[in-house]
Amino acid sequence: MKKRPLIFVTNDDGVEAPGIEALIKVMRELGDVKVVAPLHPMSGTGHAVTAREPLRLKLLEKIDGFEKYACTGTPVDCVKLGEQFVIKGKPDLMVSGINHGSNSAVNIVYSGTMAAALESAIGGVPSIGFSLLDYSHDADFSHCDAFIKKITEKVLSDGLPKDICLNVNIPAINGSEIKGIKVCRQARSRWVEDYELRVDPAQKEYFWLRGTFELLEDHPETDEWALRNNYVSVVPVHFDLTAHHFLEHFKHWENHA
Amino acid sequence: MKKRPLIFVTNDDGVEAPGIEALIKVMRELGDVKVVAPLHPMSGTGHAVTAREPLRLKLLEKIDGFEKYACTGTPVDCVKLGEQFVIKGKPDLMVSGINHGSNSAVNIVYSGTMAAALESAIGGVPSIGFSLLDYSHDADFSHCDAFIKKITEKVLSDGLPKDICLNVNIPAINGSEIKGIKVCRQARSRWVEDYELRVDPAQKEYFWLRGTFELLEDHPETDEWALRNNYVSVVPVHFDLTAHHFLEHFKHWENHA
Repeated sequence: MKKRPLIFVTNDDGVEAPGIEALIKVMRELGDVKVVAPLHPMSGTGHAVTAREPLRLKLLEKIDGFEKYACTGTPVDCVKLGEQFVIKGKPDLMVSGINHGSNSAVNIVYSGTMAAALESAIGGVPSIGFSLLDYSHDADFSHCDAFIKKITEKVLSDGLPKDICLNVNIPAINGSEIKGIKVCRQARSRWVEDYELRVDPAQKEYFWLRGTFELLEDHPETDEWALRNNYVSVVPVHFDLTAHHFLEHFKHWENHA
Repeated sequence: MKKRPLIFVTNDDGVEAPGIEALIKVMRELGDVKVVAPLHPMSGTGHAVTAREPLRLKLLEKIDGFEKYACTGTPVDCVKLGEQFVIKGKPDLMVSGINHGSNSAVNIVYSGTMAAALESAIGGVPSIGFSLLDYSHDADFSHCDAFIKKITEKVLSDGLPKDICLNVNIPAINGSEIKGIKVCRQARSRWVEDYELRVDPAQKEYFWLRGTFELLEDHPETDEWALRNNYVSVVPVHFDLTAHHFLEHFKHWENHA
């Protein structure tokens, strides 16, 4: 009999978020599951790692083929600490999410969900980040199951190329309306900042972030186009930030040293 | 007379670090300078952004052509908040550093220094992150000046291609030994985690991160090779994490939806 794969699950909305529960449910159909997820919500923490503070792990649940821990750190801490003390090695697969909210386009750089997937990929583990385009706590994840299962089974059977992980975003609509899966590139976009200036009871100023997402292109090759047209977007992602196509552009600088 | 450029300076080691003082010194020779840097050390915070907490700004110094503020947030917060309330628009250039320690190879994904540069680039501002390969507080930055000045002047005169910023690392040796500038790609590497398990006075376990940097290649095209051979490494960096060379590889998934 084929051994059940060991699947490591984390997220950035915290161990109690409904999104991770939905992901755990699908993963337990596919393999043995170990969860190490942040004790507190950690969205927007990007690839932050905790080095100046100690970390703690708290066992929440342990039954045959399933363990769940809360970690006081970031999603990247969960991956690092989880591999050493919970997995005690490398899992067969790491999945992160389901994020409450989009991680398409430029959002990937701020995303704790995708940082966990990238961190796993750096360590050589096939990994996938899943996000639903609905920020609410009570988001309906029911239509995600079939897509998550299909994509995960494909990765478990075929593996992923070296140093590549997947960024999967799912439209927030009823399953019957989703047209299918589209393999995409990350769209060009940015957040336009708009902090709210407020005054505290001691008459001192403080600033609170709000922002507007600005899409700078809507090309059919992009994840944003796919999502707006009711496709599940799959972006293959790597952690080499080198702009290889501009290495030549700067080559003449070497002569000016 | 040509207008002096407006240069925005930040870092991740905190506004009181000697590295940012060294960078400010060089920048004040080249233009008007506004500094918004973290109140506390923030290295390893990656692209974290503060959304659930308010931020504060504290004016530390203001003289003709120079302003310095501390911000309670991360390096990315400093860029976002600084542009809105200190610069009140976009600067001509953003520089980040000088980081106490290397940001070569995979370290770029954990680096607050480079996250600030990437954040500026997302907003369309030419930006450069500078790092010295010496983690100590008392690091000698004196040999960095000439290289930083040369690279900054080049960017001020020529600009940078759209969506590209620079990751500059400087060996920790005497200036006379540095062979020059090398334009490189990011080396393949990773951190191998090794948390120390300790027990607190209440007999509860906690974990403290230490780690070993593992270089997985030493190709002459890489930043690690350049640095080990006493060159200043310049890596052009972008924020599109799409693995474009693997889009075709996954294309057949679309038929399985």
